[in-house]
Amino acid sequence: EIECVINDEYSIGCRQYASEVFLPFSFIARYFEVYGKLTTQPGEEAKQRFEWTHSYSRVYHPRGKYSHHGIFMSFEHYNVEYRDRVKCITGREEVPLSTQWGPQGYFYPIQIAQYGLSHFSKHLVRSTRNASLLEDAESRDTSKWSTIGDAKVLNSKDAETGSRVIAFHSEDLGAALKVAEGVRSLLFLSFDLKVTDNASVVVSIESKSRQVYRVHYVCSESLISASGDTDVYYGIGDRSEWSHLTRDLATDLHKGLVLASGKKKARRLRLFRVNTISFVGHGFVDNVTLASSEHLSQFYAAADWLVREQDEQGGWPIPVERSLADGRLQLSRGWYSAMAQGQAISLLVRAYNRTLATHYLEAALRATKLYDVPASQGGVLASFANQYSWYEEYPTTPSCFVLNGFMYALIALYDLKQTVTDRRGSAAVRLYESGMRSLKALLPLFDTGSGSIYDLRHFTLGIAPNLARWDYHSTHINQLLLLSTVDADPILRDTASRWTSYMQGHRAPHN
Amino acid sequence: EIECVINDEYSIGCRQYASEVFLPFSFIARYFEVYGKLTTQPGEEAKQRFEWTHSYSRVYHPRGKYSHHGIFMSFEHYNVEYRDRVKCITGREEVPLSTQWGPQGYFYPIQIAQYGLSHFSKHLVRSTRNASLLEDAESRDTSKWSTIGDAKVLNSKDAETGSRVIAFHSEDLGAALKVAEGVRSLLFLSFDLKVTDNASVVVSIESKSRQVYRVHYVCSESLISASGDTDVYYGIGDRSEWSHLTRDLATDLHKGLVLASGKKKARRLRLFRVNTISFVGHGFVDNVTLASSEHLSQFYAAADWLVREQDEQGGWPIPVERSLADGRLQLSRGWYSAMAQGQAISLLVRAYNRTLATHYLEAALRATKLYDVPASQGGVLASFANQYSWYEEYPTTPSCFVLNGFMYALIALYDLKQTVTDRRGSAAVRLYESGMRSLKALLPLFDTGSGSIYDLRHFTLGIAPNLARWDYHSTHINQLLLLSTVDADPILRDTASRWTSYMQGHRAPHN
Repeated sequence: EIECVINDEYSIGCRQYASEVFLPFSFIARYFEVYGKLTTQPGEEAKQRFEWTHSYSRVYHPRGKYSHHGIFMSFEHYNVEYRDRVKCITGREEVPLSTQWGPQGYFYPIQIAQYGLSHFSKHLVRSTRNASLLEDAESRDTSKWSTIGDAKVLNSKDAETGSRVIAFHSEDLGAALKVAEGVRSLLFLSFDLKVTDNASVVVSIESKSRQVYRVHYVCSESLISASGDTDVYYGIGDRSEWSHLTRDLATDLHKGLVLASGKKKARRLRLFRVNTISFVGHGFVDNVTLASSEHLSQFYAAADWLVREQDEQGGWPIPVERSLADGRLQLSRGWYSAMAQGQAISLLVRAYNRTLATHYLEAALRATKLYDVPASQGGVLASFANQYSWYEEYPTTPSCFVLNGFMYALIALYDLKQTVTDRRGSAAVRLYESGMRSLKALLPLFDTGSGSIYDLRHFTLGIAPNLARWDYHSTHINQLLLLSTVDADPILRDTASRWTSYMQGHRAPHN
Repeated sequence: EIECVINDEYSIGCRQYASEVFLPFSFIARYFEVYGKLTTQPGEEAKQRFEWTHSYSRVYHPRGKYSHHGIFMSFEHYNVEYRDRVKCITGREEVPLSTQWGPQGYFYPIQIAQYGLSHFSKHLVRSTRNASLLEDAESRDTSKWSTIGDAKVLNSKDAETGSRVIAFHSEDLGAALKVAEGVRSLLFLSFDLKVTDNASVVVSIESKSRQVYRVHYVCSESLISASGDTDVYYGIGDRSEWSHLTRDLATDLHKGLVLASGKKKARRLRLFRVNTISFVGHGFVDNVTLASSEHLSQFYAAADWLVREQDEQGGWPIPVERSLADGRLQLSRGWYSAMAQGQAISLLVRAYNRTLATHYLEAALRATKLYDVPASQGGVLASFANQYSWYEEYPTTPSCFVLNGFMYALIALYDLKQTVTDRRGSAAVRLYESGMRSLKALLPLFDTGSGSIYDLRHFTLGIAPNLARWDYHSTHINQLLLLSTVDADPILRDTASRWTSYMQGHRAPHN
């Protein structure tokens, strides 16, 4: 035992062995913000060892040259819907709703775009998908259905679509579709629905611990509610016309139970299987499917939301105030974000590339307009020292110069200019080239010699630098690695390489 | 004992005690570049403890508002002549000669100015000075002198000065001035000398270990040489006219012994006392003095060198090449430095303030011209993003933006504008205001969140930041503290305060 005086300020207890002094890891972890844990090695001896890690979060090396057709960066690893700040996937729009900066919930275009991009990427990398079409009504056999009381299920032909559909009439849990044993573990439900009178779809799910839950999809405007700790309700709005619904049952249930608990988060259940899918009220249903994933549906839900909600400036205004740097920087409701514009463009370009439906591409092209509008005039364009254009994630006055949002905005321009090779793409080309010039010039200002900085607020406000925590630092690296596959300037890969070494405790030299 | 795996890269041996893991300080010191040592507490128990220090080097808090009349920053603590890169204090000019970037030795104006400024500052803070006038020849008594062989010592009147002087004639160590017991520990020698034929002054000094050394001041152009490991020779050039010499005997001897050893450095001797001061050859001497310091003489030696050596551009060209950033930045012989201009101005202003001799002020005023000449045209002016003027310590192309040299250049402009309150000071005012605007704007770019950066080469070259080691970091702080006493903008003191906290291990927050 030996006393160790730290910087003449306070003492801690250390240990001395022979000529070496040993310090407690708890002190080192707190002082330097490093991480460590005791682990037990597998094997007969069950030996313990200590694992020190300088940082958390991962760098993903690109598989090859980045493509505007392909996976988006490392987003196949993202789980947007799992984030606690996602209140739920809405019943009406089938996109995430955020509560990060507004407890009432609001649509955050970045979140929606990332939701779409992550599912798109997962779709591309996913190896298998199990799907089972439970009911397409093509055979007149209604034996899969069970009815209680005066509930009725009929196979009929829909005049509008010409397809055979199931008509259901019930007052309570009357019409239930039996789910075959082998597909009960598939937790993504989709179906076509047309409601004639009030209707709801009730899915009974059992957890691994044998607790039974019910998720109700009701034709109301109510977003989400819970009853007790077993029943969750999602409003799916007016469904008097045919529409397709896709639901992630596990996430829907989880978000409802979080709501019921009153806490900010709850552990995700280990779900077991779908028991029944019931149809209450009056309407028609077709193509009831259970699957192990529905990535493309989720991707299109996001892309379609973006097309519907794009405003006349080509943007997606964010409907909450935002305050940064202890109130020194303010954004009023309705602000645009270059990161939202960019992530949306990346998503819309992919939707266009898959479908060749021009409305996706036109939306993407319109989305570049705000890149040319100064932040002080309601756009997202900033200027560093009157020399370098920057596309602002947070278009504050004075400027912020957030790095990761800017790079997302740049990657989107790359996506767009690669897609539109005629004159319509000229703005994207110009904005991309200008932005890449800025990135290459200003990137060193984000380097601390042992990590990276999140933005340049220290420069614009004259305050301490806002250091990037490790997950943002690795995002910076992932973005630079992506860009380095399409631009050979060594500063991109050299910086990525150096910033990666920082994650292992390496530091830039001092003089 | 427990194995600790570091970042999945290598293992070290740690110790586990109860639930805590302890790591060896030698690993921590290497990994994080911190410092620590075992110390024994005084007292009966002689208890050991370990002292951890995050950084080395000190911050000096200003005593009050900075004054162009007063001490220069914390330079009363500098010992320029002790630096290993100072080859010696020259016999002819009485200023330091540098070997830092050229083994042959060259005059480095920054070093000379810092020598002068440190002695000026020491003069102001010094509490006592012991001086003894050993011989002023005013009394006809030559009994303090001992002669060997046919050496002669005569008291005579100098026709030129009208003062009584001692004439000496000897062929070897013939005429020796006895040094009274009580003053033998005073190791700064000064005297007036006029040489009629070849002459030298030989000082016999004894170390605390009773070893006897001799320092010879000879009328030759040879810079410095040694004979054996006891005799050191300094060339003092042509002294056929009356001139005043001042010598720091301890430093003169030390530098000669370093030369004799052939190594880069040697431990300074603990000198004991002057034995004798001998005059060899033919000449006149007066006002032989031993003192405990001669700060003002050293100060004026530097100021006068600067006046003599200033070129027609008002600058002091540095006669060695300089290569920075692994050869990416080059300076050819004859380059100017804003730090040299600035430190010289600060010194010359103080010489003017003490003497009111206008040639000092005129030299200081001429020294500002290069601040307006771009580096690319042989001056020291650089521009950051075409927006902010910078006065370059190393005027490279592309630019360097060294911080400490810039702040020295700024402080000098303050010194000058405070001294010259009429129109002659208008350039200094303009350059100061422009430079302070740059400093306040660009200071945050030097902040890493845990230290400071030496320059902006990472920005101009697209490479890793050149982090400031702790003594440069504390210099930055000292400079900011000085400027904060004359400029109330909070960024100066806030940055100084934050950078000081970094020295204790504090870090800026991450997001």
